[in-house]
Amino acid sequence: MNKTPGKHHDRTQKLNDLRTAMVQHGLDAWIIPSADAHSSEYVARHWEGRAWISGFTGSAGTIVITRDKAALWTDGRYFIQAAEQLADSAITLMKDGQPGVPSMADWLAEAVPESGCVGFDGVTMSLAGIRTLQGKLADQAITLEGRHDLLDDIWHNRPPLPAAPVFLHPTTYAGKSLGGKLAEVRAMLEQHKATELLITTLDDIAWLFNLRGSDIECNPVFLAYALITRDTATLFVNQQRIEPDALAALNEAGVELAGYDEIADRLAALSDDTRLMLNPLTANYRLASVIPTSVTLIEDRLPTTDLKAIKNSTEIARMQDCHRRDGAAMVRFMRWLENNIPSGALDEVNIDLQLLAFRRESEQFRGVSFPSIVGYAGHGAICHYRADEVSAYTIDSKGLLLVDSGGQYLDGTTDITRTFACGELTYEEKRDYTLVLKSHIALTCARFKEGTRGIQLDAITRQPLWREGIDFNHGTGHGVGYFLNVHEGPQSISSRWFDVTLKPGMLITNEPGIYRDDKHGVRLENIMLVAEDVANEFGKFLKLIPLTLAPFDTRPLLVELLSDVEIHWLNEYHQTVRRELSELLEGEDLQWLERATREIQ
Amino acid sequence: MNKTPGKHHDRTQKLNDLRTAMVQHGLDAWIIPSADAHSSEYVARHWEGRAWISGFTGSAGTIVITRDKAALWTDGRYFIQAAEQLADSAITLMKDGQPGVPSMADWLAEAVPESGCVGFDGVTMSLAGIRTLQGKLADQAITLEGRHDLLDDIWHNRPPLPAAPVFLHPTTYAGKSLGGKLAEVRAMLEQHKATELLITTLDDIAWLFNLRGSDIECNPVFLAYALITRDTATLFVNQQRIEPDALAALNEAGVELAGYDEIADRLAALSDDTRLMLNPLTANYRLASVIPTSVTLIEDRLPTTDLKAIKNSTEIARMQDCHRRDGAAMVRFMRWLENNIPSGALDEVNIDLQLLAFRRESEQFRGVSFPSIVGYAGHGAICHYRADEVSAYTIDSKGLLLVDSGGQYLDGTTDITRTFACGELTYEEKRDYTLVLKSHIALTCARFKEGTRGIQLDAITRQPLWREGIDFNHGTGHGVGYFLNVHEGPQSISSRWFDVTLKPGMLITNEPGIYRDDKHGVRLENIMLVAEDVANEFGKFLKLIPLTLAPFDTRPLLVELLSDVEIHWLNEYHQTVRRELSELLEGEDLQWLERATREIQ
Repeated sequence: MNKTPGKHHDRTQKLNDLRTAMVQHGLDAWIIPSADAHSSEYVARHWEGRAWISGFTGSAGTIVITRDKAALWTDGRYFIQAAEQLADSAITLMKDGQPGVPSMADWLAEAVPESGCVGFDGVTMSLAGIRTLQGKLADQAITLEGRHDLLDDIWHNRPPLPAAPVFLHPTTYAGKSLGGKLAEVRAMLEQHKATELLITTLDDIAWLFNLRGSDIECNPVFLAYALITRDTATLFVNQQRIEPDALAALNEAGVELAGYDEIADRLAALSDDTRLMLNPLTANYRLASVIPTSVTLIEDRLPTTDLKAIKNSTEIARMQDCHRRDGAAMVRFMRWLENNIPSGALDEVNIDLQLLAFRRESEQFRGVSFPSIVGYAGHGAICHYRADEVSAYTIDSKGLLLVDSGGQYLDGTTDITRTFACGELTYEEKRDYTLVLKSHIALTCARFKEGTRGIQLDAITRQPLWREGIDFNHGTGHGVGYFLNVHEGPQSISSRWFDVTLKPGMLITNEPGIYRDDKHGVRLENIMLVAEDVANEFGKFLKLIPLTLAPFDTRPLLVELLSDVEIHWLNEYHQTVRRELSELLEGEDLQWLERATREIQ
Repeated sequence: MNKTPGKHHDRTQKLNDLRTAMVQHGLDAWIIPSADAHSSEYVARHWEGRAWISGFTGSAGTIVITRDKAALWTDGRYFIQAAEQLADSAITLMKDGQPGVPSMADWLAEAVPESGCVGFDGVTMSLAGIRTLQGKLADQAITLEGRHDLLDDIWHNRPPLPAAPVFLHPTTYAGKSLGGKLAEVRAMLEQHKATELLITTLDDIAWLFNLRGSDIECNPVFLAYALITRDTATLFVNQQRIEPDALAALNEAGVELAGYDEIADRLAALSDDTRLMLNPLTANYRLASVIPTSVTLIEDRLPTTDLKAIKNSTEIARMQDCHRRDGAAMVRFMRWLENNIPSGALDEVNIDLQLLAFRRESEQFRGVSFPSIVGYAGHGAICHYRADEVSAYTIDSKGLLLVDSGGQYLDGTTDITRTFACGELTYEEKRDYTLVLKSHIALTCARFKEGTRGIQLDAITRQPLWREGIDFNHGTGHGVGYFLNVHEGPQSISSRWFDVTLKPGMLITNEPGIYRDDKHGVRLENIMLVAEDVANEFGKFLKLIPLTLAPFDTRPLLVELLSDVEIHWLNEYHQTVRRELSELLEGEDLQWLERATREIQ
């Protein structure tokens, strides 16, 4: 958590500047969400306007400023941090979802005069989001205005849009050529009776064009738009950014290049008979607004999102390779951790640095896939904890340490959580650890009918915890990109209903946990591959194969709580880990691996 | 399965008569579904028009007749029966959901000329159903006409509407007075900002008014409508049918009585400021059509449906009592079965009669809650099998016998399935039986967070079967009425998504199965009560308590496939069954119970 001392004056000035601009534009309110023009999960600094104006630096939050009020909505992860960072400000903290807290729409309906006008930077809000907001403000005849970005006028030294090099992700890695992918996309357009496809999400664009970049921290993507017709493909990105071999590949595939900003003009010029497919949940409102009303919109998930989710055989084989190297780094890290805890010199920050150092030894490594969560004792119970010099706990020779981390590699993306015994454990710590492993195994060993959705697998995973009156407040699993975003749709395993079935070739994490405030957190996470199992008179069945290869700490286990089936699975998994990683390790690391993967009974 | 020999000429004549009437009314097609005016699951003979005209007697199916074609849609349960019964007719069998089979709407769009008119008896189709159909036929400008019932003109000797006595279900049984229920309904109307409520579903009416009848086989309901305002309650039913004490109770509660047919005029006369709540999925189209367009419709599940689903403490205590008597009848039946199988004289029909005889010994018994399914060997694999003199198998001293049955009692409704070993079993029979018990136990032992939906519990139930590559093609559980319909909403446990959470006080069945064509079927079913479990920092948890009390046959079990937890549950359950039923049994029945509930290990 970052405090913001001495920033009060600054903040007041910024709010005043914004209000002056609002008056000039005839606006009664201004909204700044945590979003870029591409519905990205993480945003470049250029789009961190909400943090800039409010001082609240959490990853999720929306501020609304009226002529005389300001309020900021954020979720449970950030209540404490936001309260601290907004202290002594004129900004009211709105704890999203808490009883009695109005939604942003309800608050706006109250705070803005009838027939008033609410402004926002149209690229930072989705078409669907604005439609919902419009519906809620229609009774008061409040209008929405998304054409300008007032922040441009008042945010001096605003960070420019990122413009890192765009490089080729060759077919030897991607497994499928750009031409082949375009053909698949076009076949799906045909099914949807669409003539054209607008792609605004950056991982969809990176996947389709077999390109990568580094515009956004942790996500190897680059700012761009794309427009695909039955016989053309246009990539809207500054051509100077593209590395020569990538440019050659694009030319060869007949891709037309246009400037990043040219997308709006192109959309405005669409002919009347265009049937344009887009995803209203991610397409930004400003772009959607310029599309002529004569164009027929076909609103659905993008074909690229579905195609990208099913990994091809090259991607799967490469991803397995990448997980061997990532697992070997984890083993070296775990031995280092075990050896160094007694020194009393480890803390949550230097542990993370050492883990990064081990990962960096792989030549394919391109950075972390998300900021590590290294949480000792009570910090392990804060699900999105991020240690810094001020907050970091020193590791003692007792209790549990949770480490959730991952890497970006040219040949894959990893995401692994292990929880370690730092010394003596309480019965509760051991029991919680054992129950989380039972929950993890329940999902890993699940088999299920084709057509099964995440909510069904979620229940199977939670059952060992629910039976003991325990639960965790986050999803059980998310999709994973291939040298792309560590959180990738459309699949997920969650208590919430999503009408997405799991299909062979999808990747999904398995990460149940137990969190006890101020005591400890346990989470155990592997990435799994959805694969075909038997097909018979009862239907087609699917199974899950762990891609992640690293031992689970067996020292905290209460073996008497495990069933024979669970013990068998753990021993088999450890045997696989030993077999797959032995070649990559030597000396004491190898000996450590052999000890760590020894059979339990 | 009933054959219909010699009916060919008849059927042709009926179709001709209908077509003549269609011409007179300017109709291009006529639809007859399996439905009454109340969206009932079972219908009185008056509404069996589809069976009358087509000869197909299955419980589900819709016939559509055009000037020159006729087609009948039914589901997988009835493909064989419908094919037999429609043989040599001019009616095409449409196997619902099979590849290449058009939906009724698509077929109509093809078969009816542009700007044509499709007729149907408006009371037999729901408002929502007709809206969907209208949407699909709009492109062809085909109109729908539901004002008349052509069958009235051509179906001579059509069975009249049923008119059995309507009797009081006193508060000592119902647990809540009519006045108390009306107050709860009105509170929910207020929440929905509705001024008036239209109730058309018969079990909702019977529950609300604490009345029962016998108009429909197996369902103790009576034909009626109800209209509830903030301060009046009107029951539309022929007053002569109501027994004196029931009439007195209605008068005392200030209920206004009107004729069954008066509902339409009353709806047509609703004032402009009425905010009328109704359920478009069950309210019939003809009634909905007479409501003035100035009336605001509030479309949702009826408050009575939600209130009825949560059993009160009297209902729960009575239901437990009723299950003791039903369980004692089951025990006597099971001993009788075991003793008489060796005689070679048992068949699927006389077994059912004997079970009925044991149930009849309870003075509260009022009939069966659904037609029993008694399926020996391969017949057990037909999920909705109904034995008759022609089809019934004689029971041999080997193989499995599936018996799914239930009773209506003044103090409850039962629904139980047991599968019995008739002698020697194959390994596959034993394994299937054991796996179904594992699946049944997985659900019974499930604990779950408040807010959990049926689809989540369904996955937990199926997991032991899915792990072995086995599945069953029906729901896992349905709600159960209290001396009402054996299938009662809104809750269910199914692979299909329903946005209904399980709540304390709900009843739900637990009935997984395995079916192998022409070999055998296994299903094991108890009714369970949803109850509160622990509440702690992780949330509120719920559990399931079996109400059904009858031994499971332990002879087919492969004990080595059961976990310690599963063996423990079975022994505990059998101990409960023994304790609860011992008082109601004596002599050899009691000895049999003690033997049947002996611990396994």
